[in-house]
Amino acid sequence: MSRNDRPILQSAANPTVRRLVRMRDNRSRRKAQRVIVDGWRESQRASEAGLELIAAYVLEEDVDRAGNIFGSAIQPVSASVMQKISFGQSPRGLVTEFIQPVRTLDALVLPPSPLLLVLDGIEKPGNIGAVFRCADGAGIDAVVLSDCRCDLFNPNAIRSSLGAVFSTPAAIDSAENVQAFLDSHSIRVIAARVESSSDLWQTDLMPPLAIVLGSEADGLAARWQAIGENPIPGVRIPMNGQVDSLNISVSAAVLSFEAARQRR
Amino acid sequence: MSRNDRPILQSAANPTVRRLVRMRDNRSRRKAQRVIVDGWRESQRASEAGLELIAAYVLEEDVDRAGNIFGSAIQPVSASVMQKISFGQSPRGLVTEFIQPVRTLDALVLPPSPLLLVLDGIEKPGNIGAVFRCADGAGIDAVVLSDCRCDLFNPNAIRSSLGAVFSTPAAIDSAENVQAFLDSHSIRVIAARVESSSDLWQTDLMPPLAIVLGSEADGLAARWQAIGENPIPGVRIPMNGQVDSLNISVSAAVLSFEAARQRR
Repeated sequence: MSRNDRPILQSAANPTVRRLVRMRDNRSRRKAQRVIVDGWRESQRASEAGLELIAAYVLEEDVDRAGNIFGSAIQPVSASVMQKISFGQSPRGLVTEFIQPVRTLDALVLPPSPLLLVLDGIEKPGNIGAVFRCADGAGIDAVVLSDCRCDLFNPNAIRSSLGAVFSTPAAIDSAENVQAFLDSHSIRVIAARVESSSDLWQTDLMPPLAIVLGSEADGLAARWQAIGENPIPGVRIPMNGQVDSLNISVSAAVLSFEAARQRR
Repeated sequence: MSRNDRPILQSAANPTVRRLVRMRDNRSRRKAQRVIVDGWRESQRASEAGLELIAAYVLEEDVDRAGNIFGSAIQPVSASVMQKISFGQSPRGLVTEFIQPVRTLDALVLPPSPLLLVLDGIEKPGNIGAVFRCADGAGIDAVVLSDCRCDLFNPNAIRSSLGAVFSTPAAIDSAENVQAFLDSHSIRVIAARVESSSDLWQTDLMPPLAIVLGSEADGLAARWQAIGENPIPGVRIPMNGQVDSLNISVSAAVLSFEAARQRR
């Protein structure tokens, strides 16, 4: 069936529409092992990053535009169905459904001397997305989420990353497994700590290196004091004013761009 | 009258309560030339920055705590009045009212060789606050808002800055007046541009220097191409991934911390 032949989905009672609406609940979506993406730019990034498309849902007038980008799996929908299946108040004219990609440590492909960010115990999807946007900009080779308390493919993470959650290599696992992975790959580890005596500009950030950042609420978990017998050295962003901390995406950016400066 | 003698404000009809509620509208607040601050940390920063306190409104059980910080101008209020005069859904147990401080270029006190951020045409208070938080951390000497389309003392700006909008020296004026100010003070100007051929790490960011950032939506206004006959050189944050931009507070942080690194 060519893409223009598919009948327009008009009814909220249609099984596909009901399935998509159900996946607006994060738990249902994860259980179905799908990723739902809102918006053209983010959907295109997901597609370019190699995610496997199930279907692209668009308004009838955008069927050709979508076909040029996403191929044949284009499903036209009515404006009211678009409203129903979109995230948030203002539909962006395109919803895409992909198979949830694998993000395990095993599947992570790294260059010979990698620069990694490890985010430990993160709770807010918006923060994850903002960090991925910075990591992408700074040329971080992979972002690893340890003991993550939220979902990499949450709509807020996708949106605040502008789609970088798809393009930046990533892995999700327990802190224990992440530490074992870094150790077995001989990747040097350094932890961002506000109380560290080693300031950013006196610290060697040359790869192979993983920079660990704690959650905004709780800081870094105790287990990041050492890996086995080896203490993990700290790095502090020099703070010159009244406020004693930066938000996590800003911290990630300052650390990542300084590492990028040293590496080039 | 000692602070504990003031009767508790209990009624939404009380003129003070009505005045405070009215000032939750930004325009009314600016007309009254007041600043309303929610929360202990932010209120303390405002007080420490020298803002003139009108009154601190607290629950009865916090009268002594507030008295220790803010002195005698403590007004106890009931929980329902606190809810009414607070910003957002969850009151933080303290609302303070200050005289709106002067933020003109004339009043700006700068060190001999200053490092400034200029934010041109910013629209979102949350972004202003986030930039102030970064500027404070990086030790920026002043933040100048040119052609600003929002309010430095908007509740969202105060909150996202953690109070740095009070402690960081700042000035607000037209882009024309800001340029004249920078010119007359012999402050070198450099503009953040994604298309600049000069990358961050090849750029001299030694003070006296003002780094100009455009708005997230529109980029930098044409008038920042030159001051009079003198072209304004650009600086580009090297972007290594798929996404072609950073958000404004992250850009401000990366530029400011690199300038801080060069300066020290």
